[in-house]
Amino acid sequence: MGHGLLEKFFQPRSLALIGATRSPGFGYGIPLFWKKNGWLEKACLVNPKGGQLHGQEVYRSISALPDGIDLAVVIVPAAGVRRVLIELGRKGIQAVIIESAGFAETGAEGKQTQEELKEIARDYGIRLLGPNCVGVVNTDNQFATIEIMDHSMEPGPVSIIAQSGVFGNILLDHLPEVGLKISKVATLGNKMDLDEADFLEYFVEDPQTRVIVIYEEGVKDGRRFLEALRQACRKKPVVILKSGRTPFGQQATLSHTASLSGEDRIYDAAFLQAGALRASNLSEMIELARVLSLQPPMKGKKVGILTTSGSLGAMTADALYHDGLELAAWNQTTIQKICEAAPDWVNVRNPLDIGPSGIFPTALQAVFSDLNPDGFILIPVIPYAAIEVWLRLGLNAKALLGNWPDLSEKTRGRPVVAVLLGCQEWMKQVRELCGEAIATVNTPEAAAKALSSLYRINQLL
Amino acid sequence: MGHGLLEKFFQPRSLALIGATRSPGFGYGIPLFWKKNGWLEKACLVNPKGGQLHGQEVYRSISALPDGIDLAVVIVPAAGVRRVLIELGRKGIQAVIIESAGFAETGAEGKQTQEELKEIARDYGIRLLGPNCVGVVNTDNQFATIEIMDHSMEPGPVSIIAQSGVFGNILLDHLPEVGLKISKVATLGNKMDLDEADFLEYFVEDPQTRVIVIYEEGVKDGRRFLEALRQACRKKPVVILKSGRTPFGQQATLSHTASLSGEDRIYDAAFLQAGALRASNLSEMIELARVLSLQPPMKGKKVGILTTSGSLGAMTADALYHDGLELAAWNQTTIQKICEAAPDWVNVRNPLDIGPSGIFPTALQAVFSDLNPDGFILIPVIPYAAIEVWLRLGLNAKALLGNWPDLSEKTRGRPVVAVLLGCQEWMKQVRELCGEAIATVNTPEAAAKALSSLYRINQLL
Repeated sequence: MGHGLLEKFFQPRSLALIGATRSPGFGYGIPLFWKKNGWLEKACLVNPKGGQLHGQEVYRSISALPDGIDLAVVIVPAAGVRRVLIELGRKGIQAVIIESAGFAETGAEGKQTQEELKEIARDYGIRLLGPNCVGVVNTDNQFATIEIMDHSMEPGPVSIIAQSGVFGNILLDHLPEVGLKISKVATLGNKMDLDEADFLEYFVEDPQTRVIVIYEEGVKDGRRFLEALRQACRKKPVVILKSGRTPFGQQATLSHTASLSGEDRIYDAAFLQAGALRASNLSEMIELARVLSLQPPMKGKKVGILTTSGSLGAMTADALYHDGLELAAWNQTTIQKICEAAPDWVNVRNPLDIGPSGIFPTALQAVFSDLNPDGFILIPVIPYAAIEVWLRLGLNAKALLGNWPDLSEKTRGRPVVAVLLGCQEWMKQVRELCGEAIATVNTPEAAAKALSSLYRINQLL
Repeated sequence: MGHGLLEKFFQPRSLALIGATRSPGFGYGIPLFWKKNGWLEKACLVNPKGGQLHGQEVYRSISALPDGIDLAVVIVPAAGVRRVLIELGRKGIQAVIIESAGFAETGAEGKQTQEELKEIARDYGIRLLGPNCVGVVNTDNQFATIEIMDHSMEPGPVSIIAQSGVFGNILLDHLPEVGLKISKVATLGNKMDLDEADFLEYFVEDPQTRVIVIYEEGVKDGRRFLEALRQACRKKPVVILKSGRTPFGQQATLSHTASLSGEDRIYDAAFLQAGALRASNLSEMIELARVLSLQPPMKGKKVGILTTSGSLGAMTADALYHDGLELAAWNQTTIQKICEAAPDWVNVRNPLDIGPSGIFPTALQAVFSDLNPDGFILIPVIPYAAIEVWLRLGLNAKALLGNWPDLSEKTRGRPVVAVLLGCQEWMKQVRELCGEAIATVNTPEAAAKALSSLYRINQLL
């Protein structure tokens, strides 16, 4: 399909809400949200009772709507959707989102009704998102077909394709809390018409999207999806979280979005072949998306680790091995610089564990200047006991660890991930020091997984 | 060894700090911390320069100390430790913590010095913790040989054996931030004398300790450790996080605490046989310890899931399968109660996905009353869009989800874990609703791992 049509979903010139209402619920909240974000003036609200809502006249019928509306959002109960869709078709509206639930996911009868909707849509040339979804979000123009929090509307680099409405919504609430800002979202629901492949093709061309995240329960048109995925992965990182990995999950997804999630190993192989990064769980998906949206690809396998904790250094080394990466050897200049600055008890190895020596800025400068590593993991954990001492001396994270944004120029386009753990106040200071230049994660394992993903991405580009 | 001696480490009647000083650092901070917590009056500070510190006279030598001191804490530089240990021995002090680094972990020479210390300790009958550690913490009497944050000193159910000083410290800073309160900590360092087995034996008898967490780099006396572990696991849950799992990590632990971490599969099998729960990474260790300290063992494999998100329900079902658990079948009464309360589109299955139906309190009551499940996972995620609507109606989490502390009486001693995700404000409300009765985790995978661990524990008891 041409991108022109999907443009109507993310950037409609005019729209209609079928099911606006004065009682609390989506029918009241969505137009209120539109009002707040400057979209109500482009919207027509429809309810057979007519009257006024949020200061705007409510249309009594779809037939009464003005011509040329780009997008209709339908939130009436399932039983009324068939009638609505016919009227939208008669009105010549070509882009429709059905948020209502109660179709194929409920069993044979619902499936039958959904099939009828499909025929109606085909007859009238309607492209349809849903049913059983919450539609779309576009932070660029502040348009969304669902109420979300203000901070979820701050524009960012990650676009999401989520099968499920509730889960897509939860991600929208959760991701900004963990530092991940959103560009666009499409929630697919039962995928009666538009599916992953359509939005993959759209997001891969979208200039605001740097990383694509897909939450998948089960693919319907596997061949088309994998081809779209393969194309997308050559241009942008794609992270996939798929449930229905096991017989239990497969049973659950069937009743959730009427998805046949299929044999997991087949998906695993197919995703790998297409070049997608499969997250094994939700936390991993989030951390991966965050790092991939900030950091460049990693050109080789060799990683340099600078740590203040030998234990976390060892855990990171384990994780690198597990993910197929290697430990870089430091060059002679680096070794010399560290030896000159460090107390006797520091072993100049990789992981480079400088403990509480206080030489982090010198060590970081030396390590970043070393051309052997292809990427870096920093573990600047400091026990509160030591932070206390330093604070008494009037020092802060920048004084103790160095000016990271300046130093990170020395990385020459190599990725850097910092592992943050410990007391909140310290983590906050280090996070500020990282800024946009250095990605942060919470565990050694997440750091290793992120770099191995950046290495895989490099092989695809 | 008798517990009398370890009592001297955690509950000394009198103590000495060798290396107190007026310049910033541990020698200044530790006695200040003691002063704050009421321990300075029981302490003698030692520094050849004499004078006063924190309002207390400083002893010029160890020989000048009063007799009968229970515990000495040594923080002088490595080069001075040998001399200090001999003087402590001559003074008849039997319990010594050496926090100083610069011994076996630095190479052959340091190893030689450490061997000399070992002989001195043996000659004088000294039991020694360290070197290269930060000693002990006991929140019960507010005693610690390292400065930690006030909130890390709030008494709780988890005792920690950590090989590494810095990492042990970071855990102390981090755990209370994630809701895990501490009873006692021993940091082992190079384990010249006292090791895991000694503290396992002590913690298993300690009435304040409900869960034991071990961070391990490499065991020295494997046979003794495994026997102590086997004994401990029959009385209390023991969670182990071990680094040095791979050749990279093994190399790193060697230079960190002079540990030979050994073949990982052998450890895996040995831990399993002993009955310990091995965490595969740091996050898992934290989540496991938190759940195990709050929840009872699970008597069977069958789990009931109540969720507002079909996707998260499916992920949880996958995770349960992965961890060898089963999905419970609801009994007829439960099915009937749900069907009466729920809208048509709710499928009464397990996972029970009630979506945005708003029937959580009724569903929870029905589910908890059902005797088929051996444990429960609750996923009360609500999109902000819906929360907004409810807040407009003046409702809070308690009104929307039910009075959990009251309802949880119906669980009849079965464990319950809640998965929290989404907007902070909502998660805060739900966390309050959980109180001490219901454990919270952040991912479906953590919930499944927690219940499978509670099931394993049940088999050991």
